Parts: sequence; C-alpha cells; structure tokens
Amino acid sequence: MTSDTEPALDRLYADFTAENLRPLWLEIGDLMPESPRSRAVPHVWEWSTLSMLARRAGDLVPVGRGGERRAIALANPALDGRPFATPTLWAAIQYLNAREDAPVHRHTQNAFRFVIEGSGVWTVVGEDPVAMNRGDFLPQPGWNWHSHINVSDQPMAWIDGLDIPYQYAVDATFFEFGPASAGVTATPDRSQSERLWAHPGLAPVAQLGPTPKTPLLAYRFEHTDAALREQLTLEDAGRAATLEPGHAAVRYVNPTTGGDVMPTIRAEFHRLRRGAATTARRTVGSSVYQVFDGAGEVVLDGTPARLDIGDLIVVPSWVSCAFRTDVGLDLFQYSDAPIIERLHLGVPLSEGA
Amino acid sequence: MTSDTEPALDRLYADFTAENLRPLWLEIGDLMPESPRSRAVPHVWEWSTLSMLARRAGDLVPVGRGGERRAIALANPALDGRPFATPTLWAAIQYLNAREDAPVHRHTQNAFRFVIEGSGVWTVVGEDPVAMNRGDFLPQPGWNWHSHINVSDQPMAWIDGLDIPYQYAVDATFFEFGPASAGVTATPDRSQSERLWAHPGLAPVAQLGPTPKTPLLAYRFEHTDAALREQLTLEDAGRAATLEPGHAAVRYVNPTTGGDVMPTIRAEFHRLRRGAATTARRTVGSSVYQVFDGAGEVVLDGTPARLDIGDLIVVPSWVSCAFRTDVGLDLFQYSDAPIIERLHLGVPLSEGA
Amino acid sequence: MTSDTEPALDRLYADFTAENLRPLWLEIGDLMPESPRSRAVPHVWEWSTLSMLARRAGDLVPVGRGGERRAIALANPALDGRPFATPTLWAAIQYLNAREDAPVHRHTQNAFRFVIEGSGVWTVVGEDPVAMNRGDFLPQPGWNWHSHINVSDQPMAWIDGLDIPYQYAVDATFFEFGPASAGVTATPDRSQSERLWAHPGLAPVAQLGPTPKTPLLAYRFEHTDAALREQLTLEDAGRAATLEPGHAAVRYVNPTTGGDVMPTIRAEFHRLRRGAATTARRTVGSSVYQVFDGAGEVVLDGTPARLDIGDLIVVPSWVSCAFRTDVGLDLFQYSDAPIIERLHLGVPLSEGA
Amino acid sequence: MTSDTEPALDRLYADFTAENLRPLWLEIGDLMPESPRSRAVPHVWEWSTLSMLARRAGDLVPVGRGGERRAIALANPALDGRPFATPTLWAAIQYLNAREDAPVHRHTQNAFRFVIEGSGVWTVVGEDPVAMNRGDFLPQPGWNWHSHINVSDQPMAWIDGLDIPYQYAVDATFFEFGPASAGVTATPDRSQSERLWAHPGLAPVAQLGPTPKTPLLAYRFEHTDAALREQLTLEDAGRAATLEPGHAAVRYVNPTTGGDVMPTIRAEFHRLRRGAATTARRTVGSSVYQVFDGAGEVVLDGTPARLDIGDLIVVPSWVSCAFRTDVGLDLFQYSDAPIIERLHLGVPLSEGA
Repeated sequence: MTSDTEPALDRLYADFTAENLRPLWLEIGDLMPESPRSRAVPHVWEWSTLSMLARRAGDLVPVGRGGERRAIALANPALDGRPFATPTLWAAIQYLNAREDAPVHRHTQNAFRFVIEGSGVWTVVGEDPVAMNRGDFLPQPGWNWHSHINVSDQPMAWIDGLDIPYQYAVDATFFEFGPASAGVTATPDRSQSERLWAHPGLAPVAQLGPTPKTPLLAYRFEHTDAALREQLTLEDAGRAATLEPGHAAVRYVNPTTGGDVMPTIRAEFHRLRRGAATTARRTVGSSVYQVFDGAGEVVLDGTPARLDIGDLIVVPSWVSCAFRTDVGLDLFQYSDAPIIERLHLGVPLSEGA
Repeated sequence: MTSDTEPALDRLYADFTAENLRPLWLEIGDLMPESPRSRAVPHVWEWSTLSMLARRAGDLVPVGRGGERRAIALANPALDGRPFATPTLWAAIQYLNAREDAPVHRHTQNAFRFVIEGSGVWTVVGEDPVAMNRGDFLPQPGWNWHSHINVSDQPMAWIDGLDIPYQYAVDATFFEFGPASAGVTATPDRSQSERLWAHPGLAPVAQLGPTPKTPLLAYRFEHTDAALREQLTLEDAGRAATLEPGHAAVRYVNPTTGGDVMPTIRAEFHRLRRGAATTARRTVGSSVYQVFDGAGEVVLDGTPARLDIGDLIVVPSWVSCAFRTDVGLDLFQYSDAPIIERLHLGVPLSEGA
Repeated sequence: MTSDTEPALDRLYADFTAENLRPLWLEIGDLMPESPRSRAVPHVWEWSTLSMLARRAGDLVPVGRGGERRAIALANPALDGRPFATPTLWAAIQYLNAREDAPVHRHTQNAFRFVIEGSGVWTVVGEDPVAMNRGDFLPQPGWNWHSHINVSDQPMAWIDGLDIPYQYAVDATFFEFGPASAGVTATPDRSQSERLWAHPGLAPVAQLGPTPKTPLLAYRFEHTDAALREQLTLEDAGRAATLEPGHAAVRYVNPTTGGDVMPTIRAEFHRLRRGAATTARRTVGSSVYQVFDGAGEVVLDGTPARLDIGDLIVVPSWVSCAFRTDVGLDLFQYSDAPIIERLHLGVPLSEGA
Repeated sequence: MTSDTEPALDRLYADFTAENLRPLWLEIGDLMPESPRSRAVPHVWEWSTLSMLARRAGDLVPVGRGGERRAIALANPALDGRPFATPTLWAAIQYLNAREDAPVHRHTQNAFRFVIEGSGVWTVVGEDPVAMNRGDFLPQPGWNWHSHINVSDQPMAWIDGLDIPYQYAVDATFFEFGPASAGVTATPDRSQSERLWAHPGLAPVAQLGPTPKTPLLAYRFEHTDAALREQLTLEDAGRAATLEPGHAAVRYVNPTTGGDVMPTIRAEFHRLRRGAATTARRTVGSSVYQVFDGAGEVVLDGTPARLDIGDLIVVPSWVSCAFRTDVGLDLFQYSDAPIIERLHLGVPLSEGA
C-alpha cells in the first residue's frame, strides 16, 4: 500500500456508497458484538399512568374501521419512537368504553390478551365468544377472525401482546378487514374452545392435532392459580416442583403439542412467595412482564425499580434481570423464546449474571 | 423339469428342513393375506363371571414375591391358551383383598389401570401414591417402580392393560424386583403428578417435556365425564364436537406432547347417547373395550352380543366393529394404534366395513 | 385359606380355562424375564449350502402367480419350523433362472435385496427398473408395485430381507396381485430414483420430503466401499471416524429424513481391518448379518463359528455378539432397531457383554 | 367528544410521547399492511463492478484482527445504507490477496461461501481444511471456529451469505476471536467432512445425527451439476423430475435431517434450459440469487434487468420474480425460508403473481 492510501481509500468508500455497498470492517463492531447488545433498553411503565392515559384516549379517540383498535403501545425509549416494546415484541394497553365494540379483522401476527382488572368484554374468535376476566390469558393465534365486544356498562382495559415488530422485521405480515360486527351476541362464561380443550390430559377425538397454534382460546386464572399453589405446597412437602426456592412457574402450552401456545410467543406465569427472590439471569431473546399481584422490586442490569400491580417491565436480550419481594409477587411474562429456540440461535441460551 | 420331479421335490423339501430352511411358496397364503387375518378372534368376557372368579382367586391364591400380582388375564380363544387378549395387548382383572399389598417391581412393559367399581387402593409410583376410583384411568409407563396397597376393609378389583404380548413378541422385556413395600403410607386424594400436571393447558416450568411417556399418572373420571358432556352439549347447539352423531369421544394424552400416553398404547373413552349407534369400522391393529356404564350391543364381524357394565370386548385387527344402545353406553377403549401409526404400517389404516 | 385349597385351586384353574382366562402368576417367569430371553436362538447358515439348495429349487420349482417368488427362508431352529429368522425379521435367498421373471405384486411389508454375487436381474419398482449388482443394497419400501426380471443367460441369487414376521405378529399385512409382467424392458445402469436422489447432500426440489420410506431404491457398492475406505484412512490420520479401532461402519439412510431407510428395518455395512475385532455387545432387538467379503469368526453368547463369504448369521435380542478377523471382514447387517427405538422399548438399549 | 377535541388530542399525544407510548391507530397502515410491503427494494448488482471494487479494496485495506474479513456487503438501496441485502440476509463479496490469510474467529451467525470463479483458498473449519472451487457451496454453520487461507499466488474472490441482519434484529449475536492462524497447512482436495458425509444415502455410524446444522462442509459443483443434468434428462424422457418445464432445481440439505443446511438459511441451485422461463412468483421471505452461468433476464415486480455471470439479484418479501433465458441460465439462490416455515409465518406462503 502506497502513501497515497487515504485519498484512494476515500475514493473507494465513495464508490462503495455509489454502488450500494458497505464494507464489513466498518460495521463489525456494531453487527457482531461479543454478546448480544440490544438497541432496546430495559424500562418500566407504571400501570396507573397507562390506565389514566387509556381512559383519556377513550374519551377522545373513536374505535372502528381503519384505526381498528384503541391500543396504545409501549415504545422502547431506545427504538426511535417506534411502537415496539422490544425488537420483536409488541405490548399495548387496549381500552373499550362501555357498550363499545372493536370491528372484525384478522392478521398473521400472533396475539394474546392478558387481563389485569375488570370484566365485561368478550373476544369473538370466529363464532366463539370468549369471556375476559382478571388473570385470564387469552391467546389469539394468527389469521383468525376476531373482534371485541363490551357488553357491560363499564369501560375495560387489558394488555395485548403480539409479534408485530418481529413480523414487521421479516416482512411476513398479512391483514384482512372483516365486517364491523361478528354478529354474535351470546356471552357464555366458557368458550366452545374451552369446552372442547380445557380438560386436563384429554383431547377431543374429533379434533386431534398436532396444530402449530393452540386451539384453546382461554386459560383461566383459577387453573393458573391452582397450579402455582400446588407447586408451593409440594415445595413445602420437600418435593421438586418449583423453579427455584419460593419461585413457582407455569408455562401456557398448546394442548395438541405440549409446546408453546404460538410459534413466536412463549407465555408463562411466575409466583414468588413472601420474602423470595429470583436468581439474576440473562437470556438470549426479550421478555415483557406484567405485575399481576403483590409488590416488589426488579433489578435490571443492576438498576432497581419498585413494582406495583399492573406495572409492565421490558427486558431486552441479554439484560440481567432479577425479582424480589417482601409481600409476594405474581408476574405474567411473555417472550420471543420460541423464535430463539426453534431456529437454534444463541450460545449459550442463558446464564446466571 | 423332468418327470421325476416329485421325488426330487420331496428330497429338496427334506433338505430344506434339515438345513433350517422353509420356502416362501408354501407359506405365502398364511403370511401374506390380502388383508389382515388375525389368528385372534373377537370375543366378549362378562364382568360378572370375571369378578366372581377373581374373588375366588382372592380366597385361594396369595399375592406376593414371585407371583407379584393377583391378575387373571383374558386368553383369546384362538391364541393357544396364552394369556393374550390380542397378539399385542394384555387385559386382566386384578384383585386385592382388604388390607392387602402387591409388592414393588418395575418392568419395561407399559401398563395402566382402569377402575370399573370400588375404591380403597392406592398405586404407589416411585414415591407418589395415586388413588384409584371408579372411572379413573391410571397410566403406568414402563420402567417405573410401583406397588399397590389396599388400605381399606374391602377387596377391590380393576382391570390392567399392558403391552406384554407385544414386548414378548419383539423380545424387549426387562423386569426388576423391588422391596416388598414402598414404605409409603400417605393416601392423598390427588397424586403429586396431578398436582403438577393436571391443570388444563399448563405445564410446570421446572419439569417441562417432551417426554415419550406421560408424567400424569391419574386421569380422573370427573374430567372425562365433563369433557364428554360438553361435546354432546355442543352437538346439541349445532357445533362440530362429536366424532359422529350422538357419539362423543376423548383421547387420554401425554400433556408434554399432546400425543398418546405411552409409546405402545392408545386409550380413549367413548360415550353414546340413548338411541345412538356407531358406524361399523375395521382398523389395522387391535383393541380392547370395557363397558363403563349403560348397556347396549356390539356387532363384531356381523355377530351381535349384549353388553352390560364391566363387560370386556376384544376386537382383533381388521375385524368389523359397531356399537349401539337404547339407554346410553359409556365405553373405555385401549388399542395398539401407536405401534401401527409410528411404524407407518397398514394401508389403508381403517375403513368403513 | 383352608386345607382343602388344592382341590379348590384345581377347580378354579379349570374354571379359568373354561372362561378363556389365564392367571399371570403361572406365566410371569416366561413373560417377564429379568432381561430379554428370546425364543429364537443364534445360528449360522452357510452360503454354499444355501446357494446349492436354491439352484436345486430353480430346477424343480416354477416361479409365478401364487407362489410369487422362489425364495427360501431361514427358519430359526427354535421357532417351530416357521420361516422366521428372528421373531421380527425374514431372511431368504431368492433365485431366478436365466431369462426368468417374477410377477408384479405389492405388500405392506417393507423389503430390501442385498446382492452377494452375480448380476443380470433388474427389480422393477413402479415403472423404474433397478439394476442389481454385487454389494448393492436395494430397498423396497412397503406398498410399491414390484417385479424382478432376469434379462441375462445366467441364473442369479440374492438375499431378501423383510419385516414379514413382525407384520404377521401385529396383524398389519396387506397384499395385492399385479400383472404377470411390469411391461418394462429397459435395463439402465442407474434407476430414475438414483438419478433424482443419489447426489450427496442434494434433494430434487420437485420431490422434497420428508417421506417415511426412502425414495432412493439403490445404494451402490461403490459408494459404500468408498465411505468405508475413507473412515479407515481418517482413522490412520488420527481422526475420529470409525466406530471402534479398525471397525468402520455406515448406515443406509433415507435422504429425506436422515433416518432409517424404512420404518421397521435398519441396514448397515461394517468393515473390519485385518486383525481387528469388535467389542462383544448385546442389544435389544434382533439382527441378521451376511458376510460380504473376507473371512473371520463370530462369537455368539460365547460360542465361536467360522465365517466365509455369503454366510448368514442370525443374532436374537440380547444375545452377545462379537466378530474378529485376521484377513479383514466385510459385513452387511440389518435389524429391527427402528421398532425398538421409535417405540422407546428396552432399558438399557444395549450394553457391553 | 366535545368540540375542544383537537387541543385535548394534542395534549394526549404529547403525553403519550412523554411516557414512551405510541398509539396503534397512527401506525397500523405501516405495521399491518394487507400483504408484506418490504422496506427493502429489489435490486441487481453487477459482478464486474463488485469484483473491480473488491480488487481495489485488496490493494488498500488490510485483512486481519479487528476488521477480520475483507468483505464488502450489498446495501439494499432502501435500507438506510445499512449493509443488509434484505432485512434478514447478508450478501458480500470477500477478497483475499495471494498468500493472504483471514484470522480465526467464530460467531453464532450462520454463514456459507459460494464460489463463482477462481480457486486457491481453503476455509479451515475447526481443524478441517476445505478447498473452495468454482461452483462449490460451502456452509459454515454458526459457532464453528474458522479462518480462510489463500495458498496460491493469485487473489481470489467469492460471495459470503449470512443471517447477520436477522440475528442483529433479534439480538442473538455472539462472537469470539481465535488465534491469528489455525495452524493448519494441509490443502487436501476433499475435506474430512466430505470423506465422512458426502456419500449418497450413507451416514457414518460413529457420527449419526440428527444435528440442526449440516456436518457436511462442502457441496461440490460436480454433484450439483450432475443432479441438474439428470433432472433435465429425465424430463426429456417424460418423467416428473423438474420443478416446471425446462427448470431443474436442487436444494442443498443437511444429511442428518434431510432439511435445510442451517436453521435460518435455505440454499438451492436452479438451472433453466435454453429458451426456458420460470413462472412469476412471489413468496413470503426474501432471497438472493447469483448468476453462476449463462445469461438471461430477471423481471422484478414487472421491471426487467439483464443478467450476466456473477450478477447478484436481491428479491425482498412478496416481490414478484421471474427469470427467462435464451442461452441457458444457472442460478445459485439462498433465502430465509426456514425462518418463515419453522415459525409458521405467512398466509399463504407463496402464490403466482
């Protein structure tokens, strides 16, 4: 290389740009770090703020054709104002006024609802109305027609989780409008999907799987709560049942496969006893937690934050995360773990941190 | 070929025999029929006879080391007096006197119990005591230590289903003696396995699968009954839920996979409404049915037989089978279908007949 | 139990028999041994005897409709004269005279041919004629139409391996007659199946799998031989390539899955260097070996036997088996291992012995 | 809603922003289009330009620790100058001067090399040196140590394909530096991986799978070429072998599974006869093509472009793509199809367009 390298290099780089090229050696530090270095940052949103803002949106913004849903998304502070909780996960509070409906549509994005408070709304999936109550996990696998109807005289808010950022990143999105209303008026306590599928260890012979997306559309809190209580009772009796001392956890699964409810989203519910703490861990892939009950503290890459009911915690990939509580803490969690695991990404998958 | 073929042929066949050889052309009709022609025959055993003989065995035959179990097996009338219900399936009535135990052992054979009447016995699997009550299906996957303890003042009988003939045919059997007693005295209503795994759509994160054999050791009748009732109620409401009109059916599944409870045995429960009938079908692979409730009729290759509670029906491969009932009929069924399906045997797998 | 137990017991046993029942406690020793105790015995058949008898059959016995094939099966000395090499596997020598054909048929039994000597026969599978030459492994997955045509002026013999005993045991057999001739006269060196599928690591996009049965109908000796030579050369260079010192081995696989060629049969080819010996092993499940080249000795449950080219060795389940050779030894092997593995049978699967 | 809505709405939106929130109804058109609307655009890069610029980089830019590789990436004109060919795929030309090495490292990104011209470079994977020649496809599954050594007196260029943008998007990247040199000097024609795994339908028993990433590190052009020629010859003979008339295609597969070579990347080779054309198709997921031989035209969303040897074509998700040729056209292709298929994304997966 001669001494006139720099002008020659400048010309080379200019020619790269002109030809839509970009050299690896200027990018490698950003693209290939020694371990995942997410553009997203950990953050906590307070439920009191979210629900107040949702109520104001309920007064000001109509829900209907075009806007489709009165959903307000968490926008990770480091993701340029885009409505992405993490690079792969969407998290939003959705709000319906009394007697208000959200129209029928379908999309390839996988979705679910989780209910922190209230009742009175039914999600209509196909022709199956699904009641929504506190503590229920309500998956909405991709490409099913669905709408929401509030049959009560009270507004209701809940959270929506979807893989919108992920499907946006990989350009796999389809969307289709349906009618303004599903035309279903029944409001049963139990959906047809539960009547067919919510029996432990039993599958209807007329509708056997495996299907990649769960046929069960409601996972009721009474079952989640019972499963967690049993784990802690077994722990008291000296049996192996909990994830770590004082920390019970269940995963919501697709009954036709025993695996995750949807191909891109894992969902779990964690319960910490009074005085318990989790080991600090970091994981390849990102998570969103919502405090369902109790109170406590989360420590994210060393920084603690107080937690109250309804608060939402966003944990990007490879960020260390630990929880602790004096009074007990119930946490709903969802993550993009199936994406990581099904594509054999990450080495190692997780570690103490 | 010359005219002296026959003596030459006789010499050839004698030499075949001397050299441990056997020509296909003398066997092909038996070995390669146009469709399965089981050596076994269809047959019905009456529960009243079985339970009376089991009681007599209870008076005369001890249970303990060596004999291991007071189990009396169905011996298909066409299988040379061997204790094989079909070429692949074992079916037996097992009987314990009041306060009597059966010792601890384990074997590679996959097993289950199904309870037609009575209570008071716990199966102890590892260290987990599992209550046995009417209508419960209690899988016992291969190579688990287990014993039975009758803690009541009444004798109890139930049926055992296993893959003994199959594992005998393929020479895959291992067996190990354990202690005379598991040393477990607790008699809880719910086993630890249920407390961990019998929550619909929920898996304990500390013990996730997939495992080829179900971790759930008791499938309670209350759940089976509820699932069947729901199917018939949905049918009344015009929904697709039943297998055919008036015929509800659930399959017992491994919650870690959504598939069959054990690698060699499928188990289902069928309910016919009053006045209902099943389509006559024949299937590659064999089944055993037990009448759990109601009464009716089975037609096996055209021959009808009356059915009452507890009666056992054996259906060999490719035998046409249909049920009908005036008063309603509940049927427990198990079969070797996983063997057929996992090895891609049979063309076609089943047909109306 | 009173002193008159024995007459009562006799009456009970008589009543069992009358009612088609058989108590476990009289059978358990036979049915549930501590480890597999096959009814079959290990045995060696000499190729010189087999081929001489096959030639005599060629002179005396026609091949055609009804008899279908001039195949003479190994009849395990302990299996009552039935034409079963082991309880699950069929092994036969098949013989066609010069210019002779075997008619078209199909059956659910999975089959293959392996050629120890000669050439001149094409197996026609569907419309695809497949040449048969020394060292070739030619799978014939169940339910494909097939016939054999000898287009040469020489007779030819080879071995057939099938799962006839297994499918007979589980009553899964279907068979269908086709025309006397496939009407195919082309005799290409390479079958269409090879032209589509015999390219390493490449699959035709127009015919992608997975399919449970291999689409590749000929595995040529030149490839087998090259693969084994490479393993031994790598071993010489200090690389991990062989199964144990001086012992190279390849498995024939279904290119659409990487697994066994057929759902019930595993096939492998083993090569021992001069002076090499295998570790004595016993395995759950049975095998048949044929000496392809070289000479040596097999030790079966401690009993040695000399081996020459073409000799067939039958190894029942859990029989200890070891080979050794001074001059080098090439062994073709097939077994029922997929049955054992896919159904999670056996604990442990194998061990040194 | 009152008439002062707009100021109230402004305040609401300001509060959303302050609280890191973003409403769906302002984003839905972009995030949830009716079908995939990629941010990337279709584009063609000419090989003559690429190779000239790579040569200039060879004169000016060293390769070594830190920069790691002299690789110049295609930067999709619509992706903000980032070095991403599509939102999920990386495509670069890599260049080594005579006698130059690129140091040892490993990363979780899955990679491959494809060679359009030249020879003289070996990729050393672990301790296995892999020759690179025209037409060879050389997978480099994630987390393997590897370096490149040019042992010739000529420079060499090839293309690298990786899932860098995808793993960057999902934050799953790990990277580790190794020594400056692998210390391997052997330059064999065939790698150890080929000697173990490049035998059609044969797997080494000592190293059986399944493994999620291919153990075969070189797919040689002679095999690819032969497979494509055979498909066209079979088509001439009236057999079903090609993808469509005059269009042969093979997929590179993992021999332990029969599936894609790596969890995130599919690779294929397509050959069009003289005068042939492909049907215009659009697919969920993106592709990169390189012209390996011949010449022709691509039509991308209706816009045609001339193609010569080495040219690279980028096809984003759901962009219609068709090829035609007068003189014959050989195309190497890679895509993110495994991501789409394994996560059950897209409805429908593809369609004529």
